[in-house]
Amino acid sequence: MLLSELVDLIKKGNSNFINSNIFEDLNIEDAASLDEADNNQISFLEENNILKEKLNQTKASAIITSDNNEIINTLEKLMISNIIVKNPRIAFAEVLNCLYKKINFKPGIHPSAVIDKTAIIGSDCYVGPNVYIGENTLIGSNNYILQGSSILGNVQIGDNNIIHPNCVIYENTILKNFCVINSNTVIGSEGFGFIPKDGKWVKMPQKGGVKIMSFVEIGTNCCVDRPAVGLTFIDEGTKLDNLVQIGHGVRIGKNCAFAAQVGIAGGAKIGDGVILAGQVGVNNRVKVGNNVVASSKCGIHTDIEEGRVISGFPAMNNKSWLRSSSIFKKLPELAKKLRQLDKK
Amino acid sequence: MLLSELVDLIKKGNSNFINSNIFEDLNIEDAASLDEADNNQISFLEENNILKEKLNQTKASAIITSDNNEIINTLEKLMISNIIVKNPRIAFAEVLNCLYKKINFKPGIHPSAVIDKTAIIGSDCYVGPNVYIGENTLIGSNNYILQGSSILGNVQIGDNNIIHPNCVIYENTILKNFCVINSNTVIGSEGFGFIPKDGKWVKMPQKGGVKIMSFVEIGTNCCVDRPAVGLTFIDEGTKLDNLVQIGHGVRIGKNCAFAAQVGIAGGAKIGDGVILAGQVGVNNRVKVGNNVVASSKCGIHTDIEEGRVISGFPAMNNKSWLRSSSIFKKLPELAKKLRQLDKK
Amino acid sequence: MLLSELVDLIKKGNSNFINSNIFEDLNIEDAASLDEADNNQISFLEENNILKEKLNQTKASAIITSDNNEIINTLEKLMISNIIVKNPRIAFAEVLNCLYKKINFKPGIHPSAVIDKTAIIGSDCYVGPNVYIGENTLIGSNNYILQGSSILGNVQIGDNNIIHPNCVIYENTILKNFCVINSNTVIGSEGFGFIPKDGKWVKMPQKGGVKIMSFVEIGTNCCVDRPAVGLTFIDEGTKLDNLVQIGHGVRIGKNCAFAAQVGIAGGAKIGDGVILAGQVGVNNRVKVGNNVVASSKCGIHTDIEEGRVISGFPAMNNKSWLRSSSIFKKLPELAKKLRQLDKK
Repeated sequence: MLLSELVDLIKKGNSNFINSNIFEDLNIEDAASLDEADNNQISFLEENNILKEKLNQTKASAIITSDNNEIINTLEKLMISNIIVKNPRIAFAEVLNCLYKKINFKPGIHPSAVIDKTAIIGSDCYVGPNVYIGENTLIGSNNYILQGSSILGNVQIGDNNIIHPNCVIYENTILKNFCVINSNTVIGSEGFGFIPKDGKWVKMPQKGGVKIMSFVEIGTNCCVDRPAVGLTFIDEGTKLDNLVQIGHGVRIGKNCAFAAQVGIAGGAKIGDGVILAGQVGVNNRVKVGNNVVASSKCGIHTDIEEGRVISGFPAMNNKSWLRSSSIFKKLPELAKKLRQLDKK
Repeated sequence: MLLSELVDLIKKGNSNFINSNIFEDLNIEDAASLDEADNNQISFLEENNILKEKLNQTKASAIITSDNNEIINTLEKLMISNIIVKNPRIAFAEVLNCLYKKINFKPGIHPSAVIDKTAIIGSDCYVGPNVYIGENTLIGSNNYILQGSSILGNVQIGDNNIIHPNCVIYENTILKNFCVINSNTVIGSEGFGFIPKDGKWVKMPQKGGVKIMSFVEIGTNCCVDRPAVGLTFIDEGTKLDNLVQIGHGVRIGKNCAFAAQVGIAGGAKIGDGVILAGQVGVNNRVKVGNNVVASSKCGIHTDIEEGRVISGFPAMNNKSWLRSSSIFKKLPELAKKLRQLDKK
Repeated sequence: MLLSELVDLIKKGNSNFINSNIFEDLNIEDAASLDEADNNQISFLEENNILKEKLNQTKASAIITSDNNEIINTLEKLMISNIIVKNPRIAFAEVLNCLYKKINFKPGIHPSAVIDKTAIIGSDCYVGPNVYIGENTLIGSNNYILQGSSILGNVQIGDNNIIHPNCVIYENTILKNFCVINSNTVIGSEGFGFIPKDGKWVKMPQKGGVKIMSFVEIGTNCCVDRPAVGLTFIDEGTKLDNLVQIGHGVRIGKNCAFAAQVGIAGGAKIGDGVILAGQVGVNNRVKVGNNVVASSKCGIHTDIEEGRVISGFPAMNNKSWLRSSSIFKKLPELAKKLRQLDKK
């Protein structure tokens, strides 16, 4: 695609186009990061990126960047075509969507799919090889259900969802629209509910369901359990990375982002816009307020107020944790000093 | 089902029935938590539950509760039918089992299942679509093996087990009776055994097996590895949540409960009745005594005596950990104070 | 197999044979650990192994051991046949490979496999039931692709690989030779790339690929994500245990070993020979030098120089961490002492 065509695309997009300067209207064949880009490739550079130092080594033919005089001057000197926008990352995402084809399965139901006769499947769906769809399940239009996935009975799926290979979606799950469920993820499996009695565990039947609102994306090898009664609920726009555990009866707000290997124990309530870094854990029934940010490996075992930035285990203010952690390293010195003072 | 019929059910059950008071013998259509229950629904309330405060807001038509005068008096005033038992949670589990149908796959072998001609399958089994069963595998009666699961050769499965979709069970696995293996879990995969030699890793062949006793339940996306020689062993009544790793040659006692994302490294020996909270890790070859309880994210890297309650990493007594952790937060103050004293 | 034949095998192997003493040339039927071995079974004992104390209780008919006088004398007294080598573990691995049959699927393509007509599959491959292979995918010779695995379009697979059941390998993955991908693992799924904009998350399309060099082994239920552009890369001889997360754009060197539940966040660069114990986490874009060893649960959030042995979170020298951790337990005492000194 010609560079000028990509510029037109960006102008119409959501990155807030500012200006562009095309030295040569080349055919752009590919997109790459600044250090790996070759001729006829486009890249992007945000103003706070350390790759800025290596700008004179790039072979990229065009660079999307922010309105930063230093970068723009360098690009002009190097005679690299540039496209200046407020949000280069958004523009780069738009370019990638344009340069690469989307998922290319054509609508239709593969003959090896096993579909209960009471299930209803909407128009323009792709149902891949060896997919299983159970009784009374309702599937809307324009969904992709890839090979080996299993959707049990009494599931409701809206429109425009992608369910990747080898997923399992259990009874009583509702999945709205424009969701992505990545491979080998399980939605609606039975919650871990056991009652101690006489040294053994009695099973609490898990008869509830899972409701996932629109624009939710869930990574690979994740688990979202259903509760004994009621719902496990994930609200609109929330994104989960891989290997994430969502316990039974958890409620997650809108537009959260949880990194890989996060675990949310049963009954926890997470607000809107919460960001949890990798390997964070949240205890049973804990409430995490809107827009809380927890750094990696943080253990949240009491309620956290809105807007806090937390770290460590037990979770504390990120800044205090950084200070305490730096002193933790010096504990042997401190203990020695204390012994010396004590002797005086 | 009529409320009076549910009361009869509870009387015959294991919750230790004490008394009941039915204001109106309504048809109970559903069960729900106290804050979500509607008319014609039943709920439960334990005496130490904070939902007690909201009892006057519930719409539940009947409540199972413990023998607590305050709760009973409130229910009587509100004219809510009540069933008093020693263990309300057990009674509620019995009610759920009664109100909801069990798994409803009818016995039979789906024509798409691929079953080796030397495999033997007992009576009243359900073998779902695209299931694979390998050579010389023996499967008892009344098992449910759901779609997409793969059971390799030389596996022995007893009676009354449920193997959920897309599980993989490897050669040399023995699974006794009344077990539940949830979706996408892998049992008997090769242990992580590599020998360092000249800067590379030489593979130690993993030729052992896995033995899982009766009434074990394993969550979704779990891994139970087989060892080089001998067995990985999980004893009767133990329950594992999702995303749990059981390394090669691990031995786990009876009636343990491990929460999500727990990892047990190779050769560790876990006693009976051990409870490990979420994201706990146990190091190679460590021995954990009977009835040990470890709180979330605990790292156990030395042997732990019977009955201890532990936290933190390295693991220590829970109470000491709580005290030390509260001082950790104040380390900057302590360090400052120490500097001041030192200057004097 | 006769013991004398096993000795011949070991002589030709890589364990550096030193000497052997056969009391009786029995038929060796099985291999087992020292404490579980029975008559007609072979075992091994390294000189620093605590099982040394129990040597007089073993029933093993032959023991592979190192050149340690104490052990050899004991074995001679007990009249247990012994094989002395420099590396007993390597010899034992060779014996196991000899005593047990390898994977026994015969080459051929199962009729239920769904293979795009543009895919090319080399000679002597086994393609199991319900396998899916997409368009333009190239598969070399002597590969085992077990039941239920899904290999999407534009994948290149070399020779002599084993892909266990229910794996998913996405577009733009290159897998070289002699690799093992264990069950339910996903390679090349889309990276977790979302751009914050107006309180929501805009998806960065993930159009890159994954390249896995020869002799790499990946455990069960792992995730290796592809990046927006460029490659996620795992170099020759690296071994990953179960439930490991490799983020988008990560580069991993040669001959690393990562234990279960390790997570490597997007863009991190790991050197050669790096060993990460269970549940270790590495932050985005961090660089970890060659031969770094991190103990379990370590959190690496800044660059780590070559050869360091680290622990804790934030990661610090292992020895310092052990010292600081032992003082952490005594923090309440220290704080008390400090208060007393302050009062004086």
